[in-house]
Amino acid sequence: MKQFSITVYPGGKKITASEGDVLLRVLKKAGFPIPASCGGQGICGKCRVVVKGGVCHASPSPFLRKEEISQGYCLACLVLIEGDMEIEIPPESLAAALHTETSTADQATIVGYRPAGEKSGQSSDSKAPAFEFAQPAVTEPTASRRILFEEKPIIKDKLVLGKWEIETRTKRLHLRLHPPTLEDHRSDIERLRAELVSAGFSGDRMRCPLPVLKKLSKVLRAGLWQITVTLIELPDGVEILDIQPGDQTQHHLGLAIDVGTTTVVVYLVDLLTGQVIETAGGYNAQVRCGEDVISRIIYARTPEGLAELQQLVISTINELIEQILKATGLSARNIGCVVAAGNTTMIHLLLGLDPRYIREEPYIPTVSLVPPVKASELGLKVNENAYLYCLPAIASYVGGDITAGILTTGMHKEPQLTMFIDIGTNGEIVLGNADWLVAASCSAGPAFEGGEVLHGMRAAHGAIESVAIDRESLEPRLSVIGQVAPAGICGSGIIDTLAEMFLSGLLDRKGKICRDILHPRLREGEYGFEYVLAFAKDTAIGKDIVITEIDIDNILRAKGAVYAGCSTLLKQMGLGIEDIERFLIAGGFGRYLNIHNAVVIGLLPDLPYERFRYLGNSAVTGGHLALLSQRLWREAEQIARSTTYLELSTSASFMDEYVSALFLPHTDISLFPRVEPLLKSKRAEN
Amino acid sequence: MKQFSITVYPGGKKITASEGDVLLRVLKKAGFPIPASCGGQGICGKCRVVVKGGVCHASPSPFLRKEEISQGYCLACLVLIEGDMEIEIPPESLAAALHTETSTADQATIVGYRPAGEKSGQSSDSKAPAFEFAQPAVTEPTASRRILFEEKPIIKDKLVLGKWEIETRTKRLHLRLHPPTLEDHRSDIERLRAELVSAGFSGDRMRCPLPVLKKLSKVLRAGLWQITVTLIELPDGVEILDIQPGDQTQHHLGLAIDVGTTTVVVYLVDLLTGQVIETAGGYNAQVRCGEDVISRIIYARTPEGLAELQQLVISTINELIEQILKATGLSARNIGCVVAAGNTTMIHLLLGLDPRYIREEPYIPTVSLVPPVKASELGLKVNENAYLYCLPAIASYVGGDITAGILTTGMHKEPQLTMFIDIGTNGEIVLGNADWLVAASCSAGPAFEGGEVLHGMRAAHGAIESVAIDRESLEPRLSVIGQVAPAGICGSGIIDTLAEMFLSGLLDRKGKICRDILHPRLREGEYGFEYVLAFAKDTAIGKDIVITEIDIDNILRAKGAVYAGCSTLLKQMGLGIEDIERFLIAGGFGRYLNIHNAVVIGLLPDLPYERFRYLGNSAVTGGHLALLSQRLWREAEQIARSTTYLELSTSASFMDEYVSALFLPHTDISLFPRVEPLLKSKRAEN
Ligand code: FES
Ligand code: FES
Repeated sequence: MKQFSITVYPGGKKITASEGDVLLRVLKKAGFPIPASCGGQGICGKCRVVVKGGVCHASPSPFLRKEEISQGYCLACLVLIEGDMEIEIPPESLAAALHTETSTADQATIVGYRPAGEKSGQSSDSKAPAFEFAQPAVTEPTASRRILFEEKPIIKDKLVLGKWEIETRTKRLHLRLHPPTLEDHRSDIERLRAELVSAGFSGDRMRCPLPVLKKLSKVLRAGLWQITVTLIELPDGVEILDIQPGDQTQHHLGLAIDVGTTTVVVYLVDLLTGQVIETAGGYNAQVRCGEDVISRIIYARTPEGLAELQQLVISTINELIEQILKATGLSARNIGCVVAAGNTTMIHLLLGLDPRYIREEPYIPTVSLVPPVKASELGLKVNENAYLYCLPAIASYVGGDITAGILTTGMHKEPQLTMFIDIGTNGEIVLGNADWLVAASCSAGPAFEGGEVLHGMRAAHGAIESVAIDRESLEPRLSVIGQVAPAGICGSGIIDTLAEMFLSGLLDRKGKICRDILHPRLREGEYGFEYVLAFAKDTAIGKDIVITEIDIDNILRAKGAVYAGCSTLLKQMGLGIEDIERFLIAGGFGRYLNIHNAVVIGLLPDLPYERFRYLGNSAVTGGHLALLSQRLWREAEQIARSTTYLELSTSASFMDEYVSALFLPHTDISLFPRVEPLLKSKRAEN
Repeated sequence: MKQFSITVYPGGKKITASEGDVLLRVLKKAGFPIPASCGGQGICGKCRVVVKGGVCHASPSPFLRKEEISQGYCLACLVLIEGDMEIEIPPESLAAALHTETSTADQATIVGYRPAGEKSGQSSDSKAPAFEFAQPAVTEPTASRRILFEEKPIIKDKLVLGKWEIETRTKRLHLRLHPPTLEDHRSDIERLRAELVSAGFSGDRMRCPLPVLKKLSKVLRAGLWQITVTLIELPDGVEILDIQPGDQTQHHLGLAIDVGTTTVVVYLVDLLTGQVIETAGGYNAQVRCGEDVISRIIYARTPEGLAELQQLVISTINELIEQILKATGLSARNIGCVVAAGNTTMIHLLLGLDPRYIREEPYIPTVSLVPPVKASELGLKVNENAYLYCLPAIASYVGGDITAGILTTGMHKEPQLTMFIDIGTNGEIVLGNADWLVAASCSAGPAFEGGEVLHGMRAAHGAIESVAIDRESLEPRLSVIGQVAPAGICGSGIIDTLAEMFLSGLLDRKGKICRDILHPRLREGEYGFEYVLAFAKDTAIGKDIVITEIDIDNILRAKGAVYAGCSTLLKQMGLGIEDIERFLIAGGFGRYLNIHNAVVIGLLPDLPYERFRYLGNSAVTGGHLALLSQRLWREAEQIARSTTYLELSTSASFMDEYVSALFLPHTDISLFPRVEPLLKSKRAEN
């Protein structure tokens, strides 16, 4: 395995890092205090470092300004180690880390389900025991400083670089009206309308909701005819969302929400600067009604089930909003616009729409391009007249979260062929470029989230998140979230286990454990043949943590579905794996994923390493973008309208691909040229 | 007094009528059974007769179709006798009258306040004792048949004659959607949107309220992909108001509402044909909180006062709606659009807006051009997604009811100079033509509605509604609503009394009762000098009904304010009374008004008789028009925007005019050339 040297300033301490590791993790292991309140998902913007020299491909982030980027700023959780580097931890990060570390101590770490609304993502992986990664495929070493940023979607202070500007739907204006006289006896609303027209707005079809009308006369007079108006530009004019006395233009807020099946993430955004002011995340309280979208749809058919699911997700969001407002001291009233991204079922449940027909062939949702809804109709605790805009869906199983992801990648505007995947219980896959986009969804099942695996668990406190197996002793080295005795194994640990067992010769290409190696960790267990990752004395659960052949089978099916989805899309378009110029991974699952190991097991295609990028939570990032720019919102609508959806469940070609992908890494090993030479012994060959 | 002969078919009976009397009243007196469920306000459309020959200037009415008009149909309550006539009572009127007479017997007549929601206007004046009118000024007798109709706003069966067509905001469409397949997997709403686009609507910005979205998937499938969509055209596209399975396009309803300070009138309109299906009227339940707008504004400042007033008017409207729906068996759900006309204060109270600043200088309302409001936000019992459109106001004291009136007259589109007045406690006056419009409001006080007059009462059962005084005996002849012993005297009776006393020489030009005539009816009473209209033995109240000098004084102030308003507007525009080519009178007060007597006392200017027209309730008629035609709605907006409001309360010129108008008929008798020769003796001269 390739090792690189990272020099960390201030101090100039040199540390060693394995190729492909995440910079944040490397720094944490070495004891550097880096704040990371989202736990490395790229959504809190806290883990800022400055790259002073060396190779660095940073993924895009909305948390950095143009000037900062040119100074070398990036988020450590989005940097993969590709060579030697010199980095500096800036003073603000050092200070924030101190603060974060203290406050984290008091907070619960995620273990299984928690009541919604508590801060999630606080599970820190700092000071995890060092272990070695399997060696990834060859990459070119580089000496000179080379910082390559995606050009989108990075937000500048006031207006924006790249190809778009901050152009929010909602505006806040400070207006000075002429007080009325006997000669100028226009009504309050006509006076306001005239002032808006002279400010350049089309006042012809001014909408003004009753609650605003009701306070209009009082506020105008209380403010001595100086007021702050919050309005939203509609195609036919404006709608007044709020009026306040005096000049309150400095408070102009919006919310971007990722309504996930498992977790909900909320960004509070300053609509003047585009910056994220505060974030919060927590489990979607709906999980108590079922873990995946299908079980939620079934639950929605019970009496009151739909209403309950709606109420649960709304209270989840409201608790996160309250948390953010408490932390910032800002007022819900000043939140004038909300953008939500979520899969199609989640958006239906959020709006209280019956998701029944999403599950019944031919799988038709009620809405894909969702008409705007008054947030108050849902009971969201923001300004009572604010609108909620839901990012448009492509199909029943490729939702607005994926549209948001595409928007984030910019793949719909670029010439390179990009593949974008977001893996959860469903794997959504998008392929395309500026000329065309195709999308599909494959059911990966819960294996990558720890389901259907005997000792599987979520990526929470006590989860084995990475595994290395010594090629000689066949002993595992484990990294556990929270550096505690392990309670189970999460998605990234499971993939590591499979890859390491395969490369060590413990697994054959069919995923069967070799019966002819004698080792205390290899044995016939209660559920069939198994490999022991940790013996009972070393675990938190008082029994052995193992991985069984049944587990491995379930994982093969999950990875096979994802790979078959990718290759079916490529085939449909007459393309091969080698044509993919960028391979972008989104979603929480990608966070701790060792890409090399994912390639080894055949989950990801065998592409040159540098073509992969991890995007973090691209749903909320896309929501953030669509909140800030009406142009990008229209791009999202265009993406949703123009992306071709392929139904895999009825595709014969997909079934063929799937069967071929149930092997390690694949029936056709020639598709994985970089994996073949790594196979340790002929034992692994079939 | 000129007498004319009316020949009535079937039967050919000849009856005698006085010039200036209302045809409906003449027929009722003669015992013909004419239905008149609105009591002659021109708003029920029941009193249909066919003019077969003679002179007839009919006021416009939306109840008649083009073919009918060409056949000579008109509403008897809107026809003033100007010469000999031949008329026919059509079979449908005879039949309806029979029905009405029967059902009227069971209904309470209006005496004072009634609970809102009961049918008003049932006070029949049939078979009142005959009496003679004072002789009006000379008019040309005409022999040939001459039916002159205003060309607006008469509504044809499907589309419309004259200058406009039925072009409602809400549409109802029957759509057949293609059922979805695995290949055509568009969402329900996209499928609907596409169908609307192919039906010619702009689907780009389709709004769809949550309640409609929620039922969309079910209704589509219940209707086997055939549905009826109710939508409203907005400037930026359409909003879906409702979806129902199958073809239900035949039910397409709207409401026009006159929200009066005293009474509320509701029309249920078939939006396909434009016809009024049913009407209802009742007292505004707010009357218990104050009789006029000022006392309502004061009441609104009490704690909960505003909310109470809003709730009262809404329950009044809802009771009228229920009454109509019960009578017709139609469903509230199919009422997709509501247009309301009312004075500025009434509209504020309807919407729950604080009317406070309407009353405080410089008299500024919150709204004049009122943004559309969801009817459900107010709790109106119509389709939950229907919009309420309030006709725009010109100023705080010239409201949307007057805008509706102007729209009804068409004066904003015609070359002739028109004066339009609507007299209640406030007299609103509009002057102008196609080139310009000016409006003013003068406080007439309650005298014309029976207030500030010792034995004054509303035009209800038991009210003396007309008075003639024998020039020799000085004995009065009374006509009482309901042909019962009188309980008081209403506005038209008061005006008659003044005019007759003046012409009989009982009053001098200052409004003082002549002390030098000895007559048992002239005496010093408890409240000063008075004339006895009815002695206690002949009344329903067990005491004498009199008119006192104080009463007369109050009436002089009221008529002086109205006349001064008219003359100030004319002066402001550099015009004289003789320039007025049409003088249109709207409102319930005008209903029984003897125009000649109104001229004699100097309430109305001394114009040739044929220039006057009574319009009936032009507020609800204007609402009806604006409901049917988007073009007319835009005209109403244009009227409200372009009409110049003159504030009389601070005008020195108005004060001068007012003081001059406190005489009978005026200080300057030369302004009343037709009245001068009528003065009976020098006693009336000053
Ligand atoms: S740790 Fe939150 S953005 Fe990097
Ligand atoms: S009586 Fe009602 S319209 Fe004539």
